[in-house]
Amino acid sequence: MSWNTFGRAFRFTTWGESHGPALGVVVDGCPPGLRLTEDDIQPFLDARKPGQSKYTTQRKEADAVRILSGTFEGRTTGTPISLMIENTDQRSKDYSEVAKAYRPGHADYAYDAKYGFRDYRGGGRSSARETAARVAAGAIARLVIPEVAITGWVEAIGPHAMDYANFDAEQIAANPFFCPDAQAAADWEGVVDATRKAGSSIGAVVACEATGVPPGWGAPVYAKLDSEIAAAMMTINATKGVEIGDGFAAARRSGEENADAMAPGEDGAVSFAANHSGGTAGGISTGQPVTCRVAFKPTSSILTLVDTVTRDGEATQIRTKGRHDPCVGIRGVPVVEAMMALVLADQKLLHRAQCGGERD
Amino acid sequence: MSWNTFGRAFRFTTWGESHGPALGVVVDGCPPGLRLTEDDIQPFLDARKPGQSKYTTQRKEADAVRILSGTFEGRTTGTPISLMIENTDQRSKDYSEVAKAYRPGHADYAYDAKYGFRDYRGGGRSSARETAARVAAGAIARLVIPEVAITGWVEAIGPHAMDYANFDAEQIAANPFFCPDAQAAADWEGVVDATRKAGSSIGAVVACEATGVPPGWGAPVYAKLDSEIAAAMMTINATKGVEIGDGFAAARRSGEENADAMAPGEDGAVSFAANHSGGTAGGISTGQPVTCRVAFKPTSSILTLVDTVTRDGEATQIRTKGRHDPCVGIRGVPVVEAMMALVLADQKLLHRAQCGGERD
Amino acid sequence: MSWNTFGRAFRFTTWGESHGPALGVVVDGCPPGLRLTEDDIQPFLDARKPGQSKYTTQRKEADAVRILSGTFEGRTTGTPISLMIENTDQRSKDYSEVAKAYRPGHADYAYDAKYGFRDYRGGGRSSARETAARVAAGAIARLVIPEVAITGWVEAIGPHAMDYANFDAEQIAANPFFCPDAQAAADWEGVVDATRKAGSSIGAVVACEATGVPPGWGAPVYAKLDSEIAAAMMTINATKGVEIGDGFAAARRSGEENADAMAPGEDGAVSFAANHSGGTAGGISTGQPVTCRVAFKPTSSILTLVDTVTRDGEATQIRTKGRHDPCVGIRGVPVVEAMMALVLADQKLLHRAQCGGERD
Amino acid sequence: MSWNTFGRAFRFTTWGESHGPALGVVVDGCPPGLRLTEDDIQPFLDARKPGQSKYTTQRKEADAVRILSGTFEGRTTGTPISLMIENTDQRSKDYSEVAKAYRPGHADYAYDAKYGFRDYRGGGRSSARETAARVAAGAIARLVIPEVAITGWVEAIGPHAMDYANFDAEQIAANPFFCPDAQAAADWEGVVDATRKAGSSIGAVVACEATGVPPGWGAPVYAKLDSEIAAAMMTINATKGVEIGDGFAAARRSGEENADAMAPGEDGAVSFAANHSGGTAGGISTGQPVTCRVAFKPTSSILTLVDTVTRDGEATQIRTKGRHDPCVGIRGVPVVEAMMALVLADQKLLHRAQCGGERD
Repeated sequence: MSWNTFGRAFRFTTWGESHGPALGVVVDGCPPGLRLTEDDIQPFLDARKPGQSKYTTQRKEADAVRILSGTFEGRTTGTPISLMIENTDQRSKDYSEVAKAYRPGHADYAYDAKYGFRDYRGGGRSSARETAARVAAGAIARLVIPEVAITGWVEAIGPHAMDYANFDAEQIAANPFFCPDAQAAADWEGVVDATRKAGSSIGAVVACEATGVPPGWGAPVYAKLDSEIAAAMMTINATKGVEIGDGFAAARRSGEENADAMAPGEDGAVSFAANHSGGTAGGISTGQPVTCRVAFKPTSSILTLVDTVTRDGEATQIRTKGRHDPCVGIRGVPVVEAMMALVLADQKLLHRAQCGGERD
Repeated sequence: MSWNTFGRAFRFTTWGESHGPALGVVVDGCPPGLRLTEDDIQPFLDARKPGQSKYTTQRKEADAVRILSGTFEGRTTGTPISLMIENTDQRSKDYSEVAKAYRPGHADYAYDAKYGFRDYRGGGRSSARETAARVAAGAIARLVIPEVAITGWVEAIGPHAMDYANFDAEQIAANPFFCPDAQAAADWEGVVDATRKAGSSIGAVVACEATGVPPGWGAPVYAKLDSEIAAAMMTINATKGVEIGDGFAAARRSGEENADAMAPGEDGAVSFAANHSGGTAGGISTGQPVTCRVAFKPTSSILTLVDTVTRDGEATQIRTKGRHDPCVGIRGVPVVEAMMALVLADQKLLHRAQCGGERD
Repeated sequence: MSWNTFGRAFRFTTWGESHGPALGVVVDGCPPGLRLTEDDIQPFLDARKPGQSKYTTQRKEADAVRILSGTFEGRTTGTPISLMIENTDQRSKDYSEVAKAYRPGHADYAYDAKYGFRDYRGGGRSSARETAARVAAGAIARLVIPEVAITGWVEAIGPHAMDYANFDAEQIAANPFFCPDAQAAADWEGVVDATRKAGSSIGAVVACEATGVPPGWGAPVYAKLDSEIAAAMMTINATKGVEIGDGFAAARRSGEENADAMAPGEDGAVSFAANHSGGTAGGISTGQPVTCRVAFKPTSSILTLVDTVTRDGEATQIRTKGRHDPCVGIRGVPVVEAMMALVLADQKLLHRAQCGGERD
Repeated sequence: MSWNTFGRAFRFTTWGESHGPALGVVVDGCPPGLRLTEDDIQPFLDARKPGQSKYTTQRKEADAVRILSGTFEGRTTGTPISLMIENTDQRSKDYSEVAKAYRPGHADYAYDAKYGFRDYRGGGRSSARETAARVAAGAIARLVIPEVAITGWVEAIGPHAMDYANFDAEQIAANPFFCPDAQAAADWEGVVDATRKAGSSIGAVVACEATGVPPGWGAPVYAKLDSEIAAAMMTINATKGVEIGDGFAAARRSGEENADAMAPGEDGAVSFAANHSGGTAGGISTGQPVTCRVAFKPTSSILTLVDTVTRDGEATQIRTKGRHDPCVGIRGVPVVEAMMALVLADQKLLHRAQCGGERD
């Protein structure tokens, strides 16, 4: 079934196709009284916006957001916040080839199998343009959790990983790759440029950290923070894997190697000797930074001819022309951050619902 | 907030603690008319049951399931199916140490931070005993999707990976590790035995494959099959990572390397040259096997003394005595299979809801 | 918590205030392949539109609907359908009096108590303009249930009830009161005109019937058709009561008087001697017409001075000027019909999810 | 689809049939730290219990509740609370007649149409025994809202209404009819006794009032308090109508007659001149008592022969023997109270989720 809503207490519903007149999101359950104007949202959309460098798609979209409801005199009212972004650069191109045959790795065949037909213009609903809507919603989510700071970055492009010894958070905004390692960023210029020129594509790994999450958010059993974050990240286009904390590396360790020993901290808090767990225990936050890593596959849109079939089941070949990101993971950074914010805002409200009362 | 329900159309709610009188699950939304008795459920519980070999916890539980509602004359009625499993081996032990100090890596501290106190007997609700309830529910889910075959196995224990060149599905049931590689299984005996004797623990990776899933299950955007599976797997105790298809390996590739080229198949179907995507595209099944890998961390219950704090914030050390799995991932196999079945049953019903009508 | 979504399988989320730039709805879960253009929706909005006669509010709204997503080449794609209606007649008036004091019977005080402040322009989110969005969604719901015909009408205005002996369905569209009794409609002209001229308001009862609902829709226990319809109707502004079938009249009867005796019908169906139950038994449709009645209170917007308090808790008096419906129940008819369609579309899909498979 | 869960934040899921081994409920989302033992629940079950007087069914059930999870040392832990009640008096009777033909007014035909077959033993899932589970859940809900007092009573049996001039809350527990009018209660003895002796049945109206609800609970638009209460009440067996406040009477009035004028109250609160609205405005509580009325039809189980059809579509007649309540509305009182408590507990938590934070 079509399912375009995410969240339990802080919920959002996105809509829109890549080649329709607009796309948008309705945010429901937002607390009242938060200061909110378009200016609180636009910077996050700008960070995700295509056409910012030669390393991303050349589609030009203003991605200007408009608040249509849910605020009054610059504050949230507690009623649904409707955000709309018009599509402006839907280049009139020839989709006849895409209409006729399925692009391998794309949603084409699966959508057709599910729905009996599909909107083949630029991927329709399966386009990554949908993520603009959640980045907008994520900007509102951040207002709900002012105690939390969320930072995402690209950790690897294809086989080329950054070096954490060079980690410098300042660098993230200083290069077109959201990379905290200046040396790696410099190296990636050649990698991505060559990929783009070859009409190829390349995968990436995005990391994200949320600091300031207090102990106690999340829930046993089926809304564990780990599960909510994994679900959120795996709704992003092109994602194929997610890790909380050390993830698969933890599976290779012994219990001694993986222990996050505890000690008395400042002001009655607890300090931890390590954060292998990524800030959760039993699915509930421990007060440590909440960390995750997300694997983005290379986009399937490549200029190389690939074997495929037509809607009628005939063998053919297809190459995917158009304006595509050579490395879709790069623009995934603001989306990963947004999903982290949306999960945490939801969990904050859920925690308050159950545990926000007086205790005797 | 406490959240103990999973699923949208085929939903289940689990309850129970490790040291309460019983645990159970209510399955709601199950189609009517399916033949169901305890005998359809018990074998899956037996596969998960502790105490089956010296490589798993020595807690002895019959894990005998009882159907309390939802069937009539051996068939499901369409009303909620209540299953109960009594806890029989709650060894009377001294929990005073656990009550006083937090076990690092366990849910102890996080639960206390969330709820203000906790049930410290054997982990309470955070115990892996909860997974018995979902294995029982998963057995019912399998009846809903008879067209699908689900197989899980252990792929690696700690740094010791099996060799896929030796893959033999028959072997999975032939060794205590659910390992399809007889040689690896033989090697793991020593690994796990040494771990157990050392009072240590070790991580593992579990793989799972579902064949027979027709094209079209799953949904854009926030109920993508990838997202639903990731969410499901990450609710299992000790899981810290999940991959669909090639997962993080795909992030290291180019678009050409990762393409799942298509060709005309038999009977009007489509055949694929590879399955890097793990059987989904755009979050919707393609008809290929749906595959995932799940990372289990080493259980935090080890005999080594680890630094920690008391409830009062004093520094102390703790070792976790008791009857624990040296490699909790092994018994994770039936649980991973169950979650796969539960997700797919849900998605089958959701697909039928939206797309099951006549088309003009 | 703000909750602006309704439905389980066929879900819709409305947004917008009376004095914002627009209002709208996102419909999610709609089956694919249905023919849908704005022309399928507009007539229902026109029926609800203000300013159609002197018996309704004189606010002039085009209420022109625009489809922003979810269709392709004139058919639904199965992805979310976003509908938007611009607000065009937000007369610039002086709200200072409303801003200062609470209008008794309105949501003013309750919203302020809940959210800490409120959008006082025309009621904000509590305005009946929100119902335009659901009438638009209801038009799509009707396409999902072509086997069902839904008819609503006004049964009584204040103490003035129609006479069912005069029931003529043709009359409903022939007078400004959606009244199937021509004589009553004629009488009501004077009643409503006098109410309007006096600056007063008056209550109404709306009835609704859905024919063609097959046996088997609805669900035990917490999604009974009776419960879903009651919930749906009681979300409409100014509603204070709902009956399924004979409702409160049934409470005055004996079991013999209230029995809906059954007999063999045509084509293997069943015929019923009466329909006291309103087409449901055990919360599930029986194949008889599904019927309900909905009580609309008189709108609280009256010109008479009423005692009230200011935001600061001071005693004052207020009269509610503006362009209000003297009998808000009249324009409730298309809304009641829409909610009936929305509930039934949802239940059709839910029934198909659980019971739409093969039976052995 | 089967739907056996109610609530959004404070959720409960019931299970069980009238003739299965047991029935029960899982309560999820309950705040931690509340003192809870079986003794907090049993009195409410005892009030609902059959066989208490000759005016209710003679089925004898101990209805002894057992807490299976979710508490520790006499307090709720925040994890799911599983309650079980064993069925002890499932008299072995001959159901062959019921199995063969449909009882008019019962769920028999509708269940069969939906599911393809049915559990005909005592109504299976459609039996009013299910309400024991929600009465148990309601007892927990009351602990969540200690600020609220909930009182229900029978207002009318058949055409015989009580006189509100005689209202004496003390009387409610003093007669077998939950009637606050001692004179009416005396009169009803004859009415119900005659009904019982005739093998007939009779309808009833139950009223309920919740005092102490603070302003601000409830939500626009699709979780209005009115809507949530209506939905809750209409899930109870045999209910066919619900009113909030004055309900249908309000539909007969003018705006002046129906106004709930406001004035400054004590301690900064507001006082109201009347409570026509039943304690809500715009779907949100105003601080006045929340009131509703619920119509119970006469149970369809009567000894009079009624025309019906067999499963094979043949005409026949049926009389419903067995141990039935002559007036099912009487035992509806504790159930109505429970549903009110369950709705209000849910709304309290939802309100806290959205509006429980600091305001700047």
